[in-house]
Amino acid sequence: NPVDATTPRIGLLVGDGIGHEIVPAAQRTVDAAMSAVGAPEVQWVELPVGYDAIAEHGDPLPASTLDALDGLDAWVLGPHDSAGYPAQFRGRLTPGGTIRKRFDLFANIRPAKAFAGVYATAPEMDLVIVRENTEGFYADRNMFTGSGEFMPTPDVAMAVGVVTRRACERIAHTAFRLAQGRRRRVTVVHKANVLSLTTGLFRDVCVEVGAQYPDVEIRTEHVDAMAAHLVRRGADFDVVVTENMFGDILSDLSGELAGSLGLAASLNSSETRAMAQAAHGAAPDIAGRNRANPTALMLSAAMLLDWMSERRTDAVLGLAADRIRLGVTGTLAAGVATADLGGLASTAEFTETVGARILRR
Amino acid sequence: NPVDATTPRIGLLVGDGIGHEIVPAAQRTVDAAMSAVGAPEVQWVELPVGYDAIAEHGDPLPASTLDALDGLDAWVLGPHDSAGYPAQFRGRLTPGGTIRKRFDLFANIRPAKAFAGVYATAPEMDLVIVRENTEGFYADRNMFTGSGEFMPTPDVAMAVGVVTRRACERIAHTAFRLAQGRRRRVTVVHKANVLSLTTGLFRDVCVEVGAQYPDVEIRTEHVDAMAAHLVRRGADFDVVVTENMFGDILSDLSGELAGSLGLAASLNSSETRAMAQAAHGAAPDIAGRNRANPTALMLSAAMLLDWMSERRTDAVLGLAADRIRLGVTGTLAAGVATADLGGLASTAEFTETVGARILRR
Ligand SMILES: CC(C)[C@H](C(=O)O)[C@@H](O)C(=O)O
Ligand SMILES: CC(C)[C@H](C(=O)O)[C@@H](O)C(=O)O
Repeated sequence: NPVDATTPRIGLLVGDGIGHEIVPAAQRTVDAAMSAVGAPEVQWVELPVGYDAIAEHGDPLPASTLDALDGLDAWVLGPHDSAGYPAQFRGRLTPGGTIRKRFDLFANIRPAKAFAGVYATAPEMDLVIVRENTEGFYADRNMFTGSGEFMPTPDVAMAVGVVTRRACERIAHTAFRLAQGRRRRVTVVHKANVLSLTTGLFRDVCVEVGAQYPDVEIRTEHVDAMAAHLVRRGADFDVVVTENMFGDILSDLSGELAGSLGLAASLNSSETRAMAQAAHGAAPDIAGRNRANPTALMLSAAMLLDWMSERRTDAVLGLAADRIRLGVTGTLAAGVATADLGGLASTAEFTETVGARILRR
Repeated sequence: NPVDATTPRIGLLVGDGIGHEIVPAAQRTVDAAMSAVGAPEVQWVELPVGYDAIAEHGDPLPASTLDALDGLDAWVLGPHDSAGYPAQFRGRLTPGGTIRKRFDLFANIRPAKAFAGVYATAPEMDLVIVRENTEGFYADRNMFTGSGEFMPTPDVAMAVGVVTRRACERIAHTAFRLAQGRRRRVTVVHKANVLSLTTGLFRDVCVEVGAQYPDVEIRTEHVDAMAAHLVRRGADFDVVVTENMFGDILSDLSGELAGSLGLAASLNSSETRAMAQAAHGAAPDIAGRNRANPTALMLSAAMLLDWMSERRTDAVLGLAADRIRLGVTGTLAAGVATADLGGLASTAEFTETVGARILRR
């Protein structure tokens, strides 16, 4: 295995709320894992986003941050509290949405799998939601210029959902390729009994693409029925591919069924770039109290290292990713957990335990 | 209590698939309950819809059926299998959607409560989803003429979501009034961090209307977080008000968490008309095998009788509704259940047991 000795550079966008705690925690965990496997030290590139960026640059997502991201292929985005930004920044695409759209990070990969030591409603669940990340019912990102949401009168608001064949094709390929390395089953989630043209196009293109993967079994489900199936027989699903909004809802649902949204990792990626981002929000109510659970972002960072490993054919990054996963699952299995899981560990204590475990093995 | 001796007339639309079994089952149950409480016999008005209507009238929802509904204020709609209709009827608003829109049945009321004798993931759940039923992301019903879905090119499909202040106001009043007779808590579900204008309008109007109900506590939640909350702490919610598509997804989810989608009743109503309709579909895979669970439609019919009772200030119809609920819950508590719940009863046996229980008490 060729080990590329070039220093890996990773952007670090702290964001808001608990971002100030969980982003440094994820960073320390990556550093520990890289050192444990003898990989070169990561060069972190800190970039402002959110309240800090408003204070420094008058914008939650300054042009300087976007320009710097342009020169990177991998970064970690902390949660942002866009609903709380001053009025002039509201009604705009959120920082996360802007970055996804700008860098065409079309695939949002969200695994949901139970952890030993964490109570799960669906302990047998082991699935991955592959969420289309650039269009669909997320009208705020649907227009080439401006937003697909508008108000023709003060009493009427409209949102234009868009589904394109191209976006369906590429997300379908992502899903089928992923399934080939897993249990070879893809479930396409749509709502074609009601939205026959948009979600019907999504479903039909996915089924078409699926024909190119004869080793993968393909099923289709309506989104409402799918929510019920996930509760009743979540273990039956392997890879679930769906449009942006359905993916948002079903991934929070699956994450919670598998244990907790606080554990739900996610990677946003294109062929050439990837962004680690937890599936949860900024939780301003518990921010600054050393209570936040950094697990989701640590596991998202591991997904980022896997992606970098594949892209650079640099196996050592994948070993570091494995170390993070082992460190996190071992810590949880040992009963060390933050308050949201009923545990007693602070964010700092949990992070330290994970780090020690990573270095010990 | 004034007992209106006028014969109640109720439309009966059998629909497709298991409709042929569960609609007659619901009908028999209503007949038993009316007789048990000494109410006048229902005059049932059978109207074709679905495959039968295609065969007889060349249309899944013939004008003659719509005209007849015009003369009624209450009816029972069986499930329809619109996805299976011949090509020329696909891409059209479904029969159920057409009826909801045509008669402006703006409120879709969907209770989710666990039943003794039925395993539930969320045994403490007791909530009601109040789903806006005429607009929102259901683009197929958003245009005054035609559909809000269209394809500008063969590779691009668009769907126009619409939220109007008027529709938000009336569904909010429905929710707050309902909450006043319950635990006085309303949760408004939106996605305003992404769809700030449309779902933001929905949220803001609901909060405005809520100010007129100072005895009712109001909270707001993002739809993705709400899916997770329902899993983690479903018992905390009382009345949940949301737009059409979110209501569709969250009601299937809640129904399953409370036991099974096969038990999930629903009423579609305006001030002047109401339609009982189960929250589940036509299940063509088990149709004609005497296996379907008629519970959801029986309980939907009980909701219809309650609605008629209130509208006509005719208490006896409410007593009949109570009898149906007691008959159904007693039967399930006694361990008599259809195969979907792991029981041994056929549709006919289950219906007979419910009927006997209703007449016995
Ligand atoms: C806040 C964020 C993690 C969330 C998500 O990706 O689920 C949101 O951006 C969205 O897309 O609805
Ligand atoms: C099939 C039917 C029961 C379903 C529903 O009301 O949930 C559908 O009509 C919808 O609106 O998505």
